[in-house]
Amino acid sequence: MSDLKASIAAANQETVDRILAGQPVWVDVRPAIEVVPGMTRNMVLHSSPRIEWGRMCGPHRNGIIGAVLFEGLAQTRDEAIHLIENGDILIDTCHNHDSVGAGAGITSASMPVVVVENKTYGNRAYCDVFESGALQSLKWGWYDEKVGAHLHWLAEVFAPVLRAGIECMGGLDVKSIVAKAVQMGDECHNRSIAASSLFFKDLMPYLLRSQVKEADLLQAVDFLAKADHFFLHVTMAAAKAVLEPAKDIPYSTVVTAMARNGVDFGIQVSGLGNEWFTAPAGKVDGLYFRSEWGPGDAALDLGDSCITETVGLGGLIQATAPTVQQYVQGTLADAIRNTVEFREICVSTNRELQLPNLDFEGTPVGIDIRKVVQTGILPILDTGITSKEAGLIGAGQARAPKECFEKALRAFVARYAQA
Amino acid sequence: MSDLKASIAAANQETVDRILAGQPVWVDVRPAIEVVPGMTRNMVLHSSPRIEWGRMCGPHRNGIIGAVLFEGLAQTRDEAIHLIENGDILIDTCHNHDSVGAGAGITSASMPVVVVENKTYGNRAYCDVFESGALQSLKWGWYDEKVGAHLHWLAEVFAPVLRAGIECMGGLDVKSIVAKAVQMGDECHNRSIAASSLFFKDLMPYLLRSQVKEADLLQAVDFLAKADHFFLHVTMAAAKAVLEPAKDIPYSTVVTAMARNGVDFGIQVSGLGNEWFTAPAGKVDGLYFRSEWGPGDAALDLGDSCITETVGLGGLIQATAPTVQQYVQGTLADAIRNTVEFREICVSTNRELQLPNLDFEGTPVGIDIRKVVQTGILPILDTGITSKEAGLIGAGQARAPKECFEKALRAFVARYAQA
Repeated sequence: MSDLKASIAAANQETVDRILAGQPVWVDVRPAIEVVPGMTRNMVLHSSPRIEWGRMCGPHRNGIIGAVLFEGLAQTRDEAIHLIENGDILIDTCHNHDSVGAGAGITSASMPVVVVENKTYGNRAYCDVFESGALQSLKWGWYDEKVGAHLHWLAEVFAPVLRAGIECMGGLDVKSIVAKAVQMGDECHNRSIAASSLFFKDLMPYLLRSQVKEADLLQAVDFLAKADHFFLHVTMAAAKAVLEPAKDIPYSTVVTAMARNGVDFGIQVSGLGNEWFTAPAGKVDGLYFRSEWGPGDAALDLGDSCITETVGLGGLIQATAPTVQQYVQGTLADAIRNTVEFREICVSTNRELQLPNLDFEGTPVGIDIRKVVQTGILPILDTGITSKEAGLIGAGQARAPKECFEKALRAFVARYAQA
Repeated sequence: MSDLKASIAAANQETVDRILAGQPVWVDVRPAIEVVPGMTRNMVLHSSPRIEWGRMCGPHRNGIIGAVLFEGLAQTRDEAIHLIENGDILIDTCHNHDSVGAGAGITSASMPVVVVENKTYGNRAYCDVFESGALQSLKWGWYDEKVGAHLHWLAEVFAPVLRAGIECMGGLDVKSIVAKAVQMGDECHNRSIAASSLFFKDLMPYLLRSQVKEADLLQAVDFLAKADHFFLHVTMAAAKAVLEPAKDIPYSTVVTAMARNGVDFGIQVSGLGNEWFTAPAGKVDGLYFRSEWGPGDAALDLGDSCITETVGLGGLIQATAPTVQQYVQGTLADAIRNTVEFREICVSTNRELQLPNLDFEGTPVGIDIRKVVQTGILPILDTGITSKEAGLIGAGQARAPKECFEKALRAFVARYAQA
């Protein structure tokens, strides 16, 4: 083995060791302004990578306008657009603030976020609290009076109840929920019903002892009892918290973030720091929720939620969730073949997450840009389909673009091989 | 087709149609004495078939003695045995009282039972409420002060809370929970964690509005939140409620009950009424929960819980629950092969219960004694392993004995073919 190859092998092992050593614990629920590093009253975060206002897709533009209205920074859409174009609204990405956001990733000062601490390394990461299962939600770029009213309830009633419950629990071990959920048909991206149900069951004894007002408790429990995707946002914050200490390891070719904003798809690589290597976002193949909707209505792939695939969940473990194949007319055989294939592009196996449909073998972990380029096997991202204007219109899957990995590999060679 | 074959085909279709038309709704929780037909203060029920005291296995004998002590009918074991041998305690089977019981099936007057009504046909069936996950429980024939105290709590505190919640819900549609659970890795016999979690989530909004005492509510929620097998007992009552209207259809060769008491294994067949066709109970292959336990410690196969297999769940749908294969060192391929094989001995398919691991094909339903005898494919029963004295010591699977099906077929021929 050449010196370079040996350095990469050691670095990749270290990267994966750090990922596997992560102990993500959900410790708090707070308004973004109180906890998200660098958050300000006039800031709106969106899903990565960064993109200028003029190039943004509909859900991002409409979502940011919605957040400006929700925060009371403007009274009308036109006023909001004026403030944005004038630079009076600071626009940045979630990833730049130790955060991830589902869908358009819209997060503003008073919106509540899940706070997950990686107990092994002491770092924290944040994700917007699950907003709702409604197709018309701010996370999909939709904002109207009803969405605004719900967001106020979420911030003012629901989040304090949830915080009280989490505090009363003394924090929730996210990995133990995920480990059980992947044995119950959740790939933990497009499907989180098991994780959400297990969490609900774990939370309830504490929530009932948390001294919140009864009327608020009832509303919160009604919401949680129907929120089958609730835990995705906790998984996302946990994935981000686990991946962060795996960054900036010299010579590592392991992917530490994937994200897309509906225009650009970007990846970050451990040995290459915080630089995003981008390519045009792809189309999402899948099922449309109404007969009148089709590919012509769809935005391109978007959202930070593929942080789940980055950590080795979601599309990388479809084997455990053949239900998710229903969006793409796939079979169990397809689901298993995909997961088996993804081992070829990953550095290691996470034996804490055992897949019943692979006879309890572990999940693939640590996507290696070299292997992606060599094999041409592109990570699958399970995902929603967003309207090109606003709103959720379907669900399915997309492939990460090869070009991102090729660009990253060229940058890696430039930095390390020619040194 | 001969007249006889045509009569059987029509009868079997009618039998399965009735099973599939069943709409089991959990409507109540009551002390057995209030609702179980024919129950008396001095009666103890056990799992079928009927068996005289002298031939009973340890868990049944010890369970019945425990129930006599629990009911205050005797103060000591010796006194209890004296009453039993003297005929002062009426001993009968659950099935003879529209009931089923898990493990030894021990049910006495003041013990709470789940009440499920088949809304299509108006009949009701009963099953003991999930006692606890403890290895030392009355359902496994274990009785001591601690078990007695817990049974009192279950009857006096827990059951009234549960009843209040179910009443407040207006009843629970069991089929909708089972349909979701079989897509989440539950085969609904050895594994009910998804069903139990989904039920908990559905119940909670109602339970919080049910005006029960807060201290009782907290205790009940603490118990439910950890009771991963809780829903099995609801599934069992539902299975019994669904199978009952499928009985007594002339010419039908479909199995309407399977049960075992640790000595005898018995089946009932629709066209043959309430007669049990028996053979010696088999051994259970599986995993022992402690290293010091082994096959020499085990009772033979026992319990009414294989009413789940009778209705087409449990061992008949292992394909959906490869986790259950861990008890027998099986693989996904084994699990799938088993379910595919069981189609060969069943009359039809239940398309309301779709199996992700069989690309959403339905579950096999309606075990035909002719097909069992012809193919030699014997139903697998997922099950616990009980100590030959008392207590749960493992879990695994057993096969229904071929002899039961052969005896039933001979009786069928005698009744119908020689007419």
